[in-house]
Amino acid sequence: MFHEGFVQPLDQKTADELRDRARIGRGSVLTATSLAASGHPGGSLSSMEMYTLLFHCAKLRPQEPRWDARDRIVVSHGHTSPGVYAALSSAGFFDREEFVAHFRQARSPFEGHVERSVPGVEWSTGNLGQGLSAGVGFALGARMTGLGWHTFVAMSDGEQHKGQVAEARRLAVKEGLVDLTVVIDMNGIQISGSTDDVMPVRVAEDFAADGWHVIGVDGHDIEALHAAITKAVADTSAPVAIVAHTVIGKGVSFMEGEPEFHGRGLKPEEYDRAMGELGLEPELEAARARRSHPISTEPLDHQTPALSVKSGEPRTYGVDDLSDNRGAWGKALVDIANTNPDIPMAVLDCDLAVSVKTDGFRDAHPTGFVQCGVGEHNAATVGGALSTCGVLTFWSDFGMFACDEVYNQQRLNDINGAALKVALTHCGIDVGEDGKTHQALDYVGAFREFFGWKAIVPADPNQTDRAVRAMAMMQGNVAIAMGRSKLPVILDSEGNPAFGEGYQFEYGKIDRVRAGNDICVLVMGTPSGAAVEAADRLRSAGVSATVGIVSSPLHLDDDFMRKAARACRVLTVEDHNVRTGLGASVAEWMALKGEAVRLARLGITSYQPSGAAAHLAAHNELDADGIERAMRKLMGQKC
Amino acid sequence: MFHEGFVQPLDQKTADELRDRARIGRGSVLTATSLAASGHPGGSLSSMEMYTLLFHCAKLRPQEPRWDARDRIVVSHGHTSPGVYAALSSAGFFDREEFVAHFRQARSPFEGHVERSVPGVEWSTGNLGQGLSAGVGFALGARMTGLGWHTFVAMSDGEQHKGQVAEARRLAVKEGLVDLTVVIDMNGIQISGSTDDVMPVRVAEDFAADGWHVIGVDGHDIEALHAAITKAVADTSAPVAIVAHTVIGKGVSFMEGEPEFHGRGLKPEEYDRAMGELGLEPELEAARARRSHPISTEPLDHQTPALSVKSGEPRTYGVDDLSDNRGAWGKALVDIANTNPDIPMAVLDCDLAVSVKTDGFRDAHPTGFVQCGVGEHNAATVGGALSTCGVLTFWSDFGMFACDEVYNQQRLNDINGAALKVALTHCGIDVGEDGKTHQALDYVGAFREFFGWKAIVPADPNQTDRAVRAMAMMQGNVAIAMGRSKLPVILDSEGNPAFGEGYQFEYGKIDRVRAGNDICVLVMGTPSGAAVEAADRLRSAGVSATVGIVSSPLHLDDDFMRKAARACRVLTVEDHNVRTGLGASVAEWMALKGEAVRLARLGITSYQPSGAAAHLAAHNELDADGIERAMRKLMGQKC
Repeated sequence: MFHEGFVQPLDQKTADELRDRARIGRGSVLTATSLAASGHPGGSLSSMEMYTLLFHCAKLRPQEPRWDARDRIVVSHGHTSPGVYAALSSAGFFDREEFVAHFRQARSPFEGHVERSVPGVEWSTGNLGQGLSAGVGFALGARMTGLGWHTFVAMSDGEQHKGQVAEARRLAVKEGLVDLTVVIDMNGIQISGSTDDVMPVRVAEDFAADGWHVIGVDGHDIEALHAAITKAVADTSAPVAIVAHTVIGKGVSFMEGEPEFHGRGLKPEEYDRAMGELGLEPELEAARARRSHPISTEPLDHQTPALSVKSGEPRTYGVDDLSDNRGAWGKALVDIANTNPDIPMAVLDCDLAVSVKTDGFRDAHPTGFVQCGVGEHNAATVGGALSTCGVLTFWSDFGMFACDEVYNQQRLNDINGAALKVALTHCGIDVGEDGKTHQALDYVGAFREFFGWKAIVPADPNQTDRAVRAMAMMQGNVAIAMGRSKLPVILDSEGNPAFGEGYQFEYGKIDRVRAGNDICVLVMGTPSGAAVEAADRLRSAGVSATVGIVSSPLHLDDDFMRKAARACRVLTVEDHNVRTGLGASVAEWMALKGEAVRLARLGITSYQPSGAAAHLAAHNELDADGIERAMRKLMGQKC
Repeated sequence: MFHEGFVQPLDQKTADELRDRARIGRGSVLTATSLAASGHPGGSLSSMEMYTLLFHCAKLRPQEPRWDARDRIVVSHGHTSPGVYAALSSAGFFDREEFVAHFRQARSPFEGHVERSVPGVEWSTGNLGQGLSAGVGFALGARMTGLGWHTFVAMSDGEQHKGQVAEARRLAVKEGLVDLTVVIDMNGIQISGSTDDVMPVRVAEDFAADGWHVIGVDGHDIEALHAAITKAVADTSAPVAIVAHTVIGKGVSFMEGEPEFHGRGLKPEEYDRAMGELGLEPELEAARARRSHPISTEPLDHQTPALSVKSGEPRTYGVDDLSDNRGAWGKALVDIANTNPDIPMAVLDCDLAVSVKTDGFRDAHPTGFVQCGVGEHNAATVGGALSTCGVLTFWSDFGMFACDEVYNQQRLNDINGAALKVALTHCGIDVGEDGKTHQALDYVGAFREFFGWKAIVPADPNQTDRAVRAMAMMQGNVAIAMGRSKLPVILDSEGNPAFGEGYQFEYGKIDRVRAGNDICVLVMGTPSGAAVEAADRLRSAGVSATVGIVSSPLHLDDDFMRKAARACRVLTVEDHNVRTGLGASVAEWMALKGEAVRLARLGITSYQPSGAAAHLAAHNELDADGIERAMRKLMGQKC
């Protein structure tokens, strides 16, 4: 089906106008990069016709840049930002002179790499090879929302070597994303020289081998490129890659084909000469004058708003219900889907659905289930982009794969203000026999690096159930981490489920499940039950301990912490690297408040062997015996 | 050239013997996984002939498993560990009954995923898709050491979707690594079902498209597989991929073709029936009895020993030499190469040599320079494996790419006890106009997650020069992190370079460049000069400050820290996430020692915009003015 009302035939007048836009755009690129004395003019010039045409052809509303049915254009080679800004300004998204004057200036939205807060930019990029995955995410969004937009991805040739591109390519074909078009700027030059010398990649062959349709075209020929885009959009049998043969530095004789202009602006005499060749008036001085004035272009909010999700009825696990947190997560996930039939919902999997308990969702809601195969980098970015489209997006994977393996992709989801909900399962030494390569011991530390992510580590199936429902309603990227083993239900001092009826999950709250004055145990996740048991044993021995369950280790609860400091003896317990998880948060809190407490920390201090989880826990003092020993030792310290 | 003395023709007797080994190996796999009640029998059975033949054909000395000229065999799908152990035991590396009895038992070397401490295992894997990169590293090692071994990589089909595989494939061809053979177990099944359903990958076409020679073969036919390996080894025009068509669960009727046996051991009645089909006596009870006895197989040391590197003559930068740390790094690197002509040395690049200052090495020692293109995941693993071969291996890249993007690969290098030396450049907001996607604000925090990595953050070109030379001599994986800008030479209180003549870099030492009692400033990296300047300004105002340069933020100097605590007012300064870098280390130290100090921390608390580095530093209070303000504020606090 031809994309309705889309890509009109190109008449001579329009073609001429577009050529002129590209010419003026080239001048803008040169002025902006010369003024900033940095930036990437070479690729911006080779991509100029691509950008000019894409922002012309796509269904967009420059005055309503977040119109929900708009086509999505992802620029994967984000360093060609001046080219993108030039094309966006010529398409009416903002004032050209604003971008030219304030390019790469601190506090300007016109950053060195394209930023989602710029009107018309859909995805912040800069780290290469991720844009196609974002495009796949947007294309899935078009299908899942029913809004049916077309997704375009612009890429460079140098980034084709990145493996994530291959992962994205295959998922696009497997999912039948025919409303996805890629345009590749084949200028043949990367930083270190010719792509054929630096790293030969058979771009057209690779796309074709993976099932894409491929169109070759002169990337500077407006009519030919327009025809290729038209053909690609009309193609309803496969996603299409347009291989656009271009010249780096195109339009300026002494820049053409020269690698050095990949990343440097022009010197004054070069600038004047270049502008002359383009038939444009130099405007460097005017732009410089304007640079000292405040910028007036309003950046868009790059945070994805929360969806109006209903939590559904929580499930309560009783004292005899031995369940694992991942089981509780899987059940809550299905509940959320059933409770919110009007909200499009996606669950991504990387070939582990049964282990990570998304098989229930898969069977009940197959159209929302996206099998990404063993391709986590792609899955992480696909999920991030999809989550910005009004689709409630979950991804579940072993902690090792959804955090460690895709660390930078999750960071980029943060920068993009995405709203991905990630369930990390099999975290910690609780992964058991799978051993060190599979031990995610660092997820709290990793998410601490990303300024926007929230991380939740529930203590038992009841808290997991409530936290998952809360997470679905929360704004932004949220991770929930859990182990592998079945866990005891945490009981309050009356013997009722501590996180059962009447409990509501609150991000940042520490839950007191035992009260006492002699010592405070702060525990996170898997060893929570053991910590409660240890405290109960010591209570019989006349030691009164507070036990605080810390489900939000990145955002401690000041009220609770003040009381903990008063107890003077503080023990932290976690199945996590002891230097970067809960122990780090508590140490930070104490040091910054100038509190001198007797602090001891139980956790993991080296990679652990492959073995039964209970055995490993005991070996690392994370069972009730070990925690009891640590508490007794702390009690021996003076306060 | 045929690999001399290698891969003898296969006579009938040997073929029969190998078939028998495979049959017994299958039984061992079943016993081990049934006893452990976990593990991956399905793929172990489909890979059994591959493993039996590889460990038979390769030039190996079972009694001397680290013989330096041995062929390298990498098993990329590390979960098939029982199959690998079975083949290794039949090849004489260790006692079969030991592995069968102690498989997946805590403290046994026979872990759930193959571990480099097992004799015959070259590279610990488990996270899929990385083994081919390790193989490329080993193949480069064969060339660079001149020892000319052959490298074999065994892979699964499910992991072919991982993008890193494509990156490795291309580098192998570009580098002409003809002594590299891959054998792929095409059993057609992954966890979630058929590979064709989960994620179709055109494996043979992909290898062929990237320039490999491809041989298809029945992976259970000993003679055919032997012939394929012989042909692959003899091929001197390209690396070869053997696509071995196999059946998951091969050899046991009810396991064949069944995805469920990917990851579960057999129940007792299944076990007996399977052993019967294989013509083997059940041995579960004997193995169970043995499991309770101590294991006698000695694990190998998995740490790569340090090389006897000479540091060469340090370079001293004077007060007028405005240089960037990365420039000093590049010069020291060339010095090291020139000073150690007898040590094979490699420098890896991902298309950034000029920026990361490895172009000097590239021009002087082109045979040691490996251009990996924009493929950081592959580069990280290649570098790790290569560093275990007696090749002094460096990789330099922007911090964002050599740390964030390859977080898990660096973690695997840690688990493997590799000895990769990584220079992270352009770290922090000092990356300037490249903006948030390029801001590595987390490298100290990241390396804190990996229990073995050391991280060095030098303060100026002099300290960089000495630290780089020291790093080359250090054992294990070491990262050195630096910014982008030119930096002032740090002077001692007499006005001489603090890290010049007479200074020797010592890992873990904090260097006092100013002494005082009123306040202690602990500073790391780029803002060091500004901190000294701020302290000097305050000295004129009658405040005496200690300034400690912390070049090893993960391993604080207890002596120095005790004195710092005595100063009572402590300020940390870093161009890094303030929650995870130096500030985290100092907070941890104070909290664990129960020291109540007035601690303030300057650093980065959110992604920063694209802008001039100096502007960003000022905005984040990391210039001398900002540090002075923070010091004055702290001075206003009671102690």
